[in-house]
Amino acid sequence: MTPSHLMSRADLDFLLHDWLRVSELTGRERYADHSRETIEAVLDLSAELAETYFAPHFRKADLTEPRLVGEEVELIPEIGEALAKFAEADLVGAAMDSRVGGLQLPYTAYLACMAWFYAANISTAAYPLLTTGNANLLLTHGSDEQIRKYVEPMIQGRFTGTMCLSEPHAGSNLADITTRAEPQPDGTYRLFGQKMWISGGEHQMAENIVHLVLAKVPGSPPGTRGISLFIVPKFLVDDDGSLGERNDIVITGLNHKMGFRGTVNTMPTLGQGMHAPGGRPGAVGYLVGEENTGLKKMFTMMNEARLGVGLGATAIGYTGYLKSLDYARNRPQGRPAGADPSTPQVMLTRHTDVRRMLLAQKSYVEGALALGLFCARLVDDEKTGTPEESTAAKTLLDVLTPIAKSWPSQWCLKANELAVQVLGGAGYTIDYDVEQHYRDNRLNPIHEGTHGIQGQDLLGRKVVAGGGAGLAALTGRITATCDRAATAGGVVAELASLLRPRVTRLIEVTTALAEVGATDPEAFLADATEYLEATGHVVIAWIWIEQLLALGDRVTAVTAAGAGAGGDGEGGARDAGGAGDGASASDAFAAGKLRAAEYFLRRELPIVDAKFDLLVAGDRTTLDMRDDWF
Amino acid sequence: MTPSHLMSRADLDFLLHDWLRVSELTGRERYADHSRETIEAVLDLSAELAETYFAPHFRKADLTEPRLVGEEVELIPEIGEALAKFAEADLVGAAMDSRVGGLQLPYTAYLACMAWFYAANISTAAYPLLTTGNANLLLTHGSDEQIRKYVEPMIQGRFTGTMCLSEPHAGSNLADITTRAEPQPDGTYRLFGQKMWISGGEHQMAENIVHLVLAKVPGSPPGTRGISLFIVPKFLVDDDGSLGERNDIVITGLNHKMGFRGTVNTMPTLGQGMHAPGGRPGAVGYLVGEENTGLKKMFTMMNEARLGVGLGATAIGYTGYLKSLDYARNRPQGRPAGADPSTPQVMLTRHTDVRRMLLAQKSYVEGALALGLFCARLVDDEKTGTPEESTAAKTLLDVLTPIAKSWPSQWCLKANELAVQVLGGAGYTIDYDVEQHYRDNRLNPIHEGTHGIQGQDLLGRKVVAGGGAGLAALTGRITATCDRAATAGGVVAELASLLRPRVTRLIEVTTALAEVGATDPEAFLADATEYLEATGHVVIAWIWIEQLLALGDRVTAVTAAGAGAGGDGEGGARDAGGAGDGASASDAFAAGKLRAAEYFLRRELPIVDAKFDLLVAGDRTTLDMRDDWF
Repeated sequence: MTPSHLMSRADLDFLLHDWLRVSELTGRERYADHSRETIEAVLDLSAELAETYFAPHFRKADLTEPRLVGEEVELIPEIGEALAKFAEADLVGAAMDSRVGGLQLPYTAYLACMAWFYAANISTAAYPLLTTGNANLLLTHGSDEQIRKYVEPMIQGRFTGTMCLSEPHAGSNLADITTRAEPQPDGTYRLFGQKMWISGGEHQMAENIVHLVLAKVPGSPPGTRGISLFIVPKFLVDDDGSLGERNDIVITGLNHKMGFRGTVNTMPTLGQGMHAPGGRPGAVGYLVGEENTGLKKMFTMMNEARLGVGLGATAIGYTGYLKSLDYARNRPQGRPAGADPSTPQVMLTRHTDVRRMLLAQKSYVEGALALGLFCARLVDDEKTGTPEESTAAKTLLDVLTPIAKSWPSQWCLKANELAVQVLGGAGYTIDYDVEQHYRDNRLNPIHEGTHGIQGQDLLGRKVVAGGGAGLAALTGRITATCDRAATAGGVVAELASLLRPRVTRLIEVTTALAEVGATDPEAFLADATEYLEATGHVVIAWIWIEQLLALGDRVTAVTAAGAGAGGDGEGGARDAGGAGDGASASDAFAAGKLRAAEYFLRRELPIVDAKFDLLVAGDRTTLDMRDDWF
Repeated sequence: MTPSHLMSRADLDFLLHDWLRVSELTGRERYADHSRETIEAVLDLSAELAETYFAPHFRKADLTEPRLVGEEVELIPEIGEALAKFAEADLVGAAMDSRVGGLQLPYTAYLACMAWFYAANISTAAYPLLTTGNANLLLTHGSDEQIRKYVEPMIQGRFTGTMCLSEPHAGSNLADITTRAEPQPDGTYRLFGQKMWISGGEHQMAENIVHLVLAKVPGSPPGTRGISLFIVPKFLVDDDGSLGERNDIVITGLNHKMGFRGTVNTMPTLGQGMHAPGGRPGAVGYLVGEENTGLKKMFTMMNEARLGVGLGATAIGYTGYLKSLDYARNRPQGRPAGADPSTPQVMLTRHTDVRRMLLAQKSYVEGALALGLFCARLVDDEKTGTPEESTAAKTLLDVLTPIAKSWPSQWCLKANELAVQVLGGAGYTIDYDVEQHYRDNRLNPIHEGTHGIQGQDLLGRKVVAGGGAGLAALTGRITATCDRAATAGGVVAELASLLRPRVTRLIEVTTALAEVGATDPEAFLADATEYLEATGHVVIAWIWIEQLLALGDRVTAVTAAGAGAGGDGEGGARDAGGAGDGASASDAFAAGKLRAAEYFLRRELPIVDAKFDLLVAGDRTTLDMRDDWF
């Protein structure tokens, strides 16, 4: 089999086993049925299914947009076939409880599996992402009956799920939704309103679609405190699980997007009388939990979805990197400066500027993947660790979630931009995948909380929560890593010495900003996006040092062999294509990790200094800008 | 008429007249027939034609890709109609000599006119861009007969032109082209080969297409020194100007692109016997000038094309900015932190993070436009100034050209990325223009010399040329501007004080790199892209100070009125929508320029420090990276 250009199994194995020690989790009761072998088996299976059923219709799904025909949405059949294979492999419930039919796989391993599907075809893989988020929310907050009626069929692949939050006039701002839920004498509700941007809102691939809908019960408090959460199935479900009447929720329009085209994006209308369950208009809804607690419940899903979006962005960046690397290794173009023009052209990787673009991608996508899996490991620790481990994991996860969502969305998009650039004109055509990855990935800084909203969340909520416990937990971990790197010595210590002062600076800047916040909340958050981006770079630099520490002596070995920092360049890239020296031949993986870490620490991390300077300077240029001056 | 969302006429007028004093050019003999009034009239006309004939089919041209039917390419008819109106208005030859039917408009005014067309519909406006470049090359290097037969019909809009450089195996590297030109006894040549990425290579909108083709005459020297330039018309042209036989150049494939879709991109095949002019296969070609001088001739066109590409990128960024501003001003969403949720939602511009994204766009697109027009003014000075002025203009233009191409291609693409972000989910749909602008603009860092090649050109050639005369000219100009700003005092002096040390640094870094170059050419150019980007930021910062100086007392006035730096924010954005204070009501334009300059100098310029540090550190991470370590 040709090497995969979706993900790197070697990298996943390194992260899961050498670094995150996922096998240790199988010593915990929840994961007792698993072992390194079962985890590897499900990774093998995921890679195979992704290659066989998801990747082949990547381009076709883009070129053949979903169509609304009457009330129904037509998708290309390959999407349904891929999702059927996915469900048959028990992957919908891979991380869920066995009591509801799940595999109880460690969440870390589950996310690693999902990376293959996201890399192969993000718009097809988005359907199970939504379904899983929906199911997990109901598993946490739904009644036993709701779990039986809706969640179990989703896990079996018979139903799919959606999240209906936004409305045409209320996107980022959910306080202003107006969808109305009228209580009925039988305890159900009837919903009336218009939703917007609902992915997977209609299709023919499942027997039923379980919509989770935010709405307001008349008389509820204004704003987000008056939002309730409802199950609104496309078809009503009888007590025996059989499908009943068609509910009064109908798609009245599709959104046509720049990318992510295989994921149908819909405008559902509720209660307009297109159907009349029970003989009258109104979408039948079932309250989840109590009234007026909907947004908080939705947030349990949103945190998971944000990790998923971050990992999706990462996987798109990762496969774009591998594909551009493959192109660069096989495309002859040009010669080194001064070379005889009658000699053969060299491969693109022979050009330093191309290697720069490849190494940048590598540092972004491998850094983002490591962060995503680290967060997944925190999910596992929160769920299955000792009470102390669980609390510590939750504190750290809370502060990392906006970064795990936003950083890959920004920098793995940048990776795709570079992938296009490596291919040049070819990269701009639909003959290659990279242009579609670039378009697909552009969604990720927008949905599940925009980039700006992640900044507000990080600075306005997460780092100040619990008297700054989140930031303290984060910087404490980073400092401990720097201490270990100092002990390790060599190039790892040298790179960590670039990180340590920036951690100190992060703490100082946060303290200074918090003082501003005490008197001027708007000035405090004015540059929350800059704060988010600077913190993100510090976190990824830390994750890179962590990876080098996990490599241990292998870094020392490649450094000693001249492959590391401070090498004199002899035997380096200029002779690429030859047999290579001992170190690279024996451990190219470690040499590559070291170079990518060096790239990130030496060349990317320094940009945070200007951001920190800006944050403490209290620059008011954007704050004081007036509408009529634009 | 509603305000234009294509370009800002107020900004163009300010740049052309208050800053660049274009009317003064009309005192020179070449432009004696023109005046401020004629320049304004042609700008008015351009704006009107762009709105009326170019903008309306912007989306349709994207959704209806060119089709190859047999040998012919089908385009939507609106493209041909728009180009006919463009030619009828004498705009093809607007900047050309009156002896060949041109208007002899100052090049500065001409580029300002073109900005409207690029903003309205870059893929339609690309046809005249190519035709003009082709015609200008022939006006410089062609014979009188060639000018009469090919250039005059192009100026009349009857013919269009192409540039056929790339081949399937030779994109950035023209040394390896293999198209063969065999000399014939009658002084013509017969060409055989395959070209690639040829925009406008076939269509039915003109009577004829004039291809300018690079090829090699058998026995020529290897590499770029053996390249010759030929005219290969689609239809042979008789001595009386009537069209003769169909030439043996045929489109055998189209490239399908992410954007720029209305500009048909073709694979022409020459000499494969699809046609047989004179009874035998082979594309008839006419040598331009001497054999083996083709690449140098093509470069006279390429420099012009690079300014055009930079201006195109700028115009796409500019219109995206105006459209996202319009959206943000009219889209209610959310409230300030802590506001009563029962109050109405505020407009997007009320949110500081949205203002940040708008101000970033403004600083990029207005900075890029000013640079583009400044370069155009240098073209005019080179052509019509005194011998001293001409030499000085050429020296400065040479060093600025790679920046004028690459900086807008990078940062006005970034502006489009931000425009999409301002619109959120809506920006990701085809219901709004910004997603298409983002896709269209992604081409600009690739064609007419990739981003990396501009860096090689700047550092490897331009700044070291003539013993560093180019860099000295540039830094001398920037320093002089800083001196004037220091004299002006106030906020302008303060902002210039942020620029001055970076200019010093640029000189130091360049000197250090040149020393590396003396012994190691590959290390010298390893980070040419970083050098390009740092220099670009310094140049744009300088251009912003220049604009503030051109505003003169208007800056002082708005600063005194509290609209400038160091204001306490009272009456600032938080009260936007009110009547505003005196300064902003009377001079919002100056206040906006000041804020955009502050944004760029305070928030963007500092990123160059990390790049300069990197450049002098001699980091070898990318240089020593090996193929097998990826």
